[in-house]
Amino acid sequence: MSGGLDSTVSAAVAKSEGFDIFALTIDYGQRHKRELKSARAVGKSMEVKEHIVLRVDMTKIGGSALTDNRVNVPKSGVKPGIPATYVPARNLVFLSLAVSYAERVGASRVYIGANSVDYSGYPDCRPEFIKAFGKAANLGTKAGVEGSGMQIAAPLQTMSKGEIVKLGKDLGAPMHLTWSCYEGGKLACGKCDSCRLRLKGFAEAKTADSVKYE
Amino acid sequence: MSGGLDSTVSAAVAKSEGFDIFALTIDYGQRHKRELKSARAVGKSMEVKEHIVLRVDMTKIGGSALTDNRVNVPKSGVKPGIPATYVPARNLVFLSLAVSYAERVGASRVYIGANSVDYSGYPDCRPEFIKAFGKAANLGTKAGVEGSGMQIAAPLQTMSKGEIVKLGKDLGAPMHLTWSCYEGGKLACGKCDSCRLRLKGFAEAKTADSVKYE
Repeated sequence: MSGGLDSTVSAAVAKSEGFDIFALTIDYGQRHKRELKSARAVGKSMEVKEHIVLRVDMTKIGGSALTDNRVNVPKSGVKPGIPATYVPARNLVFLSLAVSYAERVGASRVYIGANSVDYSGYPDCRPEFIKAFGKAANLGTKAGVEGSGMQIAAPLQTMSKGEIVKLGKDLGAPMHLTWSCYEGGKLACGKCDSCRLRLKGFAEAKTADSVKYE
Repeated sequence: MSGGLDSTVSAAVAKSEGFDIFALTIDYGQRHKRELKSARAVGKSMEVKEHIVLRVDMTKIGGSALTDNRVNVPKSGVKPGIPATYVPARNLVFLSLAVSYAERVGASRVYIGANSVDYSGYPDCRPEFIKAFGKAANLGTKAGVEGSGMQIAAPLQTMSKGEIVKLGKDLGAPMHLTWSCYEGGKLACGKCDSCRLRLKGFAEAKTADSVKYE
């Protein structure tokens, strides 16, 4: 649960499928704490069973505009290829921590908001990665060996941002509490890839976005 | 690089194969800091190119004798099945962080000391897990998509502890600086699974262990 749109709608999908939600938020040294605040608000609004915020200092690893303040966030529009905001193997790390947490609470399904349509080039959002990770998670866990197995669900996988916003609206996901901008200003910048994709999504879904832009 | 025997001998294998070593140690909230001290000493002795210690607070996840002080470390001998010292999905999390670090420094191979002969029942030490993880890592990283690929090497995979000690001796690995005991006392307890396996290894290899036991 990052505090963004996709994980919020994913959680709403999990809830609509009858699951209790154990939310995991990773404080990985991102540029700003604004999204952590949003994540907490979303969790509270969705009445999750438990919500843990785990600190993993990925700034020590660096190598991304999101974890290294010396690297600028690109603002000239979504381009093909892997962008500067790619955090090395981030979804691999986050899913692994989620699987660890799932093992402890006895959960058999991990939801992730990854989607590969408007995904701006992150290799770790692709369906083939999610599938291969699921196989590894089953072989490397107690749940996989002795228990009920460990499923990785990426319900937004093949949806556009417009479809995600529409789904979130239908499910009553608290999208008004989410934050997408890579910068942590009072207003969203409207120019980073994440803002551009969000704006496109709300426009496509003909839905009002309660986030204010510069 | 945990400060234990297996990661030290693995690093010696990597070095003998001509690689520069970028060492990653995870401070995951283990019961004691003794092994972190050993990890630093091993890294220094092996003249690694860089050594980062990453804090990941797995005590917030809990569920293991190694991360939850309310759970006792078993001392009655190595038993079949998954022991209380299993940290949920630990190797999954550690390998993921190592792959993230490898991406940043431009490394194409990640070494892990996992072995499945005397492995005391951890599912995430099994060869089939390591193999499946490697596949996921290749699909989820920039190195896998655009670059030279990301190999996961577990050179001790099929060795007994005796063979590992012998190999470490042949390669001049600084085994005298390592620490294996799950407890953090001045002397090693000699009774936890990790001490038992270490003692067995040195005995089988007919090599003197410089660690002192209670």
